[in-house]
Amino acid sequence: MAAMELIESHACHAGEQRRYRHESAATQCAMTFSVYLPPQALRDDEGGKVPFLYWLSGLTCTDENFSTKAGAQAHAARHGIALIIPDTSPRGEGVPDDPDGGYDLGLAASFYVNATEEPWRRHYQMYDYIVEELPGVVEAALPFSGARSIFGHSMGGHGALVIALRNPDRYRSVSAFSPIVNPAGVRWGQKALRSYLGSNEDDWRSYDSCALIAAANPAQQLPLRVDQGRKDEFLSEHLKTERLIEACERSGYPADIRLHAGYDHSYYFIQSYIAEHMAFHAGFLR
Amino acid sequence: MAAMELIESHACHAGEQRRYRHESAATQCAMTFSVYLPPQALRDDEGGKVPFLYWLSGLTCTDENFSTKAGAQAHAARHGIALIIPDTSPRGEGVPDDPDGGYDLGLAASFYVNATEEPWRRHYQMYDYIVEELPGVVEAALPFSGARSIFGHSMGGHGALVIALRNPDRYRSVSAFSPIVNPAGVRWGQKALRSYLGSNEDDWRSYDSCALIAAANPAQQLPLRVDQGRKDEFLSEHLKTERLIEACERSGYPADIRLHAGYDHSYYFIQSYIAEHMAFHAGFLR
Repeated sequence: MAAMELIESHACHAGEQRRYRHESAATQCAMTFSVYLPPQALRDDEGGKVPFLYWLSGLTCTDENFSTKAGAQAHAARHGIALIIPDTSPRGEGVPDDPDGGYDLGLAASFYVNATEEPWRRHYQMYDYIVEELPGVVEAALPFSGARSIFGHSMGGHGALVIALRNPDRYRSVSAFSPIVNPAGVRWGQKALRSYLGSNEDDWRSYDSCALIAAANPAQQLPLRVDQGRKDEFLSEHLKTERLIEACERSGYPADIRLHAGYDHSYYFIQSYIAEHMAFHAGFLR
Repeated sequence: MAAMELIESHACHAGEQRRYRHESAATQCAMTFSVYLPPQALRDDEGGKVPFLYWLSGLTCTDENFSTKAGAQAHAARHGIALIIPDTSPRGEGVPDDPDGGYDLGLAASFYVNATEEPWRRHYQMYDYIVEELPGVVEAALPFSGARSIFGHSMGGHGALVIALRNPDRYRSVSAFSPIVNPAGVRWGQKALRSYLGSNEDDWRSYDSCALIAAANPAQQLPLRVDQGRKDEFLSEHLKTERLIEACERSGYPADIRLHAGYDHSYYFIQSYIAEHMAFHAGFLR
């Protein structure tokens, strides 16, 4: 297990906002991630262990968007929860990017899958990175209580839902802002899934939240919350929240999916509901 | 009075985060500024009038840093206060910048003065812009209750203190994060004041908070709060909070100046104490 190198640290709400770098075996490159440790985690005794809440960001983001714009730390400090905020893709020399220069494939657009196709296969193993490698590294190095949840935005909302639905034993709860819920059925997702996984659409189903909800084991349902702005500029073409609502109703998955008049896809929406998402997860992470 | 053109709007905490542009007579160029209107200001009746709290940003910033990173909107919504967030300097074709390419003079580094020297004199009239022109425009166009306060960060903390100390009848309260309190006595300020105002140091005193505190009319003292991180990388060379503490003690100005162990100059510090600053101003703006 590679060591974590601390590259930045800022006092924040009596805790610490940190940035780390480590060599990833999964993605075969150096990965950067951010961590917010609440004040409870800075104590020296056993009581200092806290739950970890993973955040996955959307297209074009790094670990810094959520760290600087969401206003989550105030609530993490109050609830005593650490935030773990990975990057959105592998990066660096030799890591391939969209040959057409799009923002929706390659760098900052991993869609959190394990790629099987060339040229992506070597570095784009973000599913394994998020599910296995990063928790292995960070939970061993920082004061982890044993309780873990996950949430995210847009492409990261897709990642959070997929990862939680496929690993219900690993997470206590899952939530998403403005997620891509049916990547196999929308242009954003189809371009990425075809590139990373090939053209056999059956292979896409294990990264499609609507398909995973339809196939979910009723004995392993997780607390699931989604918030979506009705004025989101990507709602009708790429997000299609109504398909998640239908999938949950059809399979009896008890999701709390809320639509909000007036809100768009930006961090102004995220900051407006971050307190509710933090309280939602806190209720299951105790 | 030039019209305000709405160029962006996002729902945020049941209010609206907006961005406007207008032609400024003071700075002889197009100026952009941001506004957060709390939900109370979106009502159609007389009760919809709210106090305005002006925020001045620091070196290298635009109106967007505070809008995206401070987490102030949650508290503005709760208290029913509008935030008015101007840019940090004139901008655009023909607006001069530091010939040496520094970040501490010219664009995003106005120090909120009225320049008297060439080549700055034509556009760099930011004191008049913040004190007179911008309030004239925005308070006529948006539902203003009549109560006004001001705060800021670093160079903007300097601007807020100077403007409030020189106009105690116009503001209910003033606060600052990590302000430059004695620009006439530190390298950052001296470079800017010499460039904008010329080499007669007597002319600098009307833009120096320590000098203004020393000369303040005891009958016109404003509620004044300052928060400063002890780990701030600019504290010992450029900020020198101890000089403000001394000036206030010497002249009997009742300021609430707090030093915080561990905190640096970043927005992670601002977001940690923004709730307290908003509550401070709310107490005087009612």
